[in-house]
Amino acid sequence: MTAPEPIPPTIEWRDGVVRMIDQRRLPGELAFVEAATVEELCEAVRTMAVRGAPALGVAGAMGVALAAARGEDLDAAVAALVATRPTAANLAWGAHRARRAADPVAEARAVAAEDVAANRRLGALGAALLPPRARVLTHCNAGALACAGFGTALGIIRSADVAHVVVDETRPVLQGSRLTAWELQRLGIPVTVVADGLAATVLAEGAVDCVVVGADRIAANGDVANKVGTYPLAVVAARHRVPFYVAAPTATVDLACPGGTDIAVERRPPEEVLELGGRRLAPPGVAADNRAFDVTPADLVTAIVTEAGVARAPYAAALVALVRPG
Amino acid sequence: MTAPEPIPPTIEWRDGVVRMIDQRRLPGELAFVEAATVEELCEAVRTMAVRGAPALGVAGAMGVALAAARGEDLDAAVAALVATRPTAANLAWGAHRARRAADPVAEARAVAAEDVAANRRLGALGAALLPPRARVLTHCNAGALACAGFGTALGIIRSADVAHVVVDETRPVLQGSRLTAWELQRLGIPVTVVADGLAATVLAEGAVDCVVVGADRIAANGDVANKVGTYPLAVVAARHRVPFYVAAPTATVDLACPGGTDIAVERRPPEEVLELGGRRLAPPGVAADNRAFDVTPADLVTAIVTEAGVARAPYAAALVALVRPG
Repeated sequence: MTAPEPIPPTIEWRDGVVRMIDQRRLPGELAFVEAATVEELCEAVRTMAVRGAPALGVAGAMGVALAAARGEDLDAAVAALVATRPTAANLAWGAHRARRAADPVAEARAVAAEDVAANRRLGALGAALLPPRARVLTHCNAGALACAGFGTALGIIRSADVAHVVVDETRPVLQGSRLTAWELQRLGIPVTVVADGLAATVLAEGAVDCVVVGADRIAANGDVANKVGTYPLAVVAARHRVPFYVAAPTATVDLACPGGTDIAVERRPPEEVLELGGRRLAPPGVAADNRAFDVTPADLVTAIVTEAGVARAPYAAALVALVRPG
Repeated sequence: MTAPEPIPPTIEWRDGVVRMIDQRRLPGELAFVEAATVEELCEAVRTMAVRGAPALGVAGAMGVALAAARGEDLDAAVAALVATRPTAANLAWGAHRARRAADPVAEARAVAAEDVAANRRLGALGAALLPPRARVLTHCNAGALACAGFGTALGIIRSADVAHVVVDETRPVLQGSRLTAWELQRLGIPVTVVADGLAATVLAEGAVDCVVVGADRIAANGDVANKVGTYPLAVVAARHRVPFYVAAPTATVDLACPGGTDIAVERRPPEEVLELGGRRLAPPGVAADNRAFDVTPADLVTAIVTEAGVARAPYAAALVALVRPG
C-alpha cells in the first residue's frame, strides 16, 4: 500500500477560466483542461473531460459564470449547458442557480465550495450505516472526480472504516477501473476491479457488506437514475439481502420529476461501445444501443444518503422533508 | 442487410495438424492458426484462439489425436489438455473419448462431425420454444465459433424465426461484440450490441421475448456454469418473467458434479480486465478478480435444450433421462 496522495480540485474557477482535471486522460496521466468560453465548457461536458452529477452542477454554474464574465447572453448559456447531458439533474440545477444570482461568478464558486462541504456531511452520515471493516461494492465513479471534491459514494467510503472496495469497471466508459480505482489507490484504500458481469457473483457469495453508488437524478418517488449497470446490481443485491445505498446531494433530487419513467435517459455515441482507443471491438456496420443510464426503482433502494439526512421508504415524504425542510 | 456469408469450420483436422479460426483476431480479420503438437494446441486453448464449450470438446479430442499421430503418451496429453481450462466440461469429455478410442484421429473427426449434427438437432428443438419474429437476448458467444460449427444458443437463433438479437459485449474478452455480432452479421440476422450493464434494462422494458445462452458445464442438479455475467441476466430475467433458456449438447452435462458449488471456476489473468490491446484501463498496481465463469442456479433456468431433448425442472431426473436414456 502506497501512502495516500491528494487529489486536486476536479473543477475550479481560476483567473476567469474554468480549470478541470481532464478525466479522459486518467488513469494514464493527471492532466488539466481549461475552458474559457461556454462552448469550450460544453465540449468538456459532452466528451466527459468532466463528469459526475455534482461536478456537473458546478460545471453548469461555472458555465453561466463564463457567459456573465464575457458579457454574453445568460439564458442561451443555460440552454446550451443543459442540453449537453440531459439526464444530469445537477447540471440544470447549477446553471439555473448561477443564472438567478446577482454575481454568477461568486455564485459558481459558492456552488463548488458548498458541494465539498455537503459531501463531507453526506460522508459522515453514510459512514454511520456501514459496519466496522466494511467490504463495499461500488459502481462507476461517485468520488472526488465526480464532484468539486471529496465524493459522494466514495465520500462515504473514505469517511467509514472500510477494509476493501470492489469496483466494477463500468463499461463502456470505464469510470470504475479508470477513475474509482485511481482515487482509491491515492486514498490508500484496498481496491479490486471486476468486470461488470462478476459483481453479481461477489454479491451472491457474501463478499461485500453493502453496495454504495451515486445518482444522476432522483425522482420524487425515490426512483434513481444512475450509470447504466446500476439496476442489475440493485436487483441482485435485493435477492441476496445486501443493503443498497444511494449517495447524492439534495441537488440531485428532482421533485418535479414524479418517477423513473419520467427521467430522460441520455443516448451516447455507439462508438463508446464499439471502439476503444481507436480499436474496433465489433465488426463494421453493427449497431449499438448506448444508453448511459438506467433507472433503479425505489423499492430496491435501502436508503438515500444526502447532506441533509438519510431518506428511507416511503421516499416521497422522506425526500420532500430533506429537500424542502420546515 | 448484407447477404449471408458462410462461416468456415471453427476447428478441423487437416493433414495431421489441427486448423482453427484464430478467434483472437476477430472481428478485425478472419485468420487461421494451426497446431501440430499438443503443446501448440494447449496454447491455442489457453489464449482463447479457440474457445466455447463444444469447440473445446473437439479440441480435447484432436489434442489426443495429435499425440497419437506423433506416438506420444496419451495420458500426458489428456492431463495437459484438461488443465488448460478447468471449468470446461466438454474439454475433458472430448479428450477422454479420444483416449479410449482405438483410432484417436478418426474419433476426433467423429467428435467434430457429431457436434455439428447435435447442434442442428438442438437448434430445431430450441426453435420450437420461441415465438414467431422472436426478439432474443444472448450473452457471450455460443455460436458456430464456439462449436465445430452451427452453434448452440445461436444454433437455436438461426433455426428459429428471429427478428432481432440483442447481445451484450461480454467483458472482459468481448465474445459478444467481437464474435457473436460477427456471426449474426454473416448470417444476415439483425443484431444490436449493448454494454453488459444495459442488458437488465432491455429485459425490464420487455424488449426481448427470451434469453438464450450456452453453458460450459451443467451440474447434475441443473445448475449452469457459463461465461461470467450470465447469472445477473438470469436473476433479472426471472424478475421480469422473461424465459431463460440454456442451450448445450449433452456432453456439457456432468452428472458426476452434484451442484453449482462443486464446479471449479477458472481464474484467468487479471490483465484481461486491466488492459485492452496493450492499453492500460486501470492504474498500475490495481488488483483484478477475473473469474471467467459464474454459476446460475437451476431454479432460474426455464429449460435446458440439448440434442437429445428439452429438460425442465426437476432437472436431476430430466438430465439423467437425456444423458443416460433407456
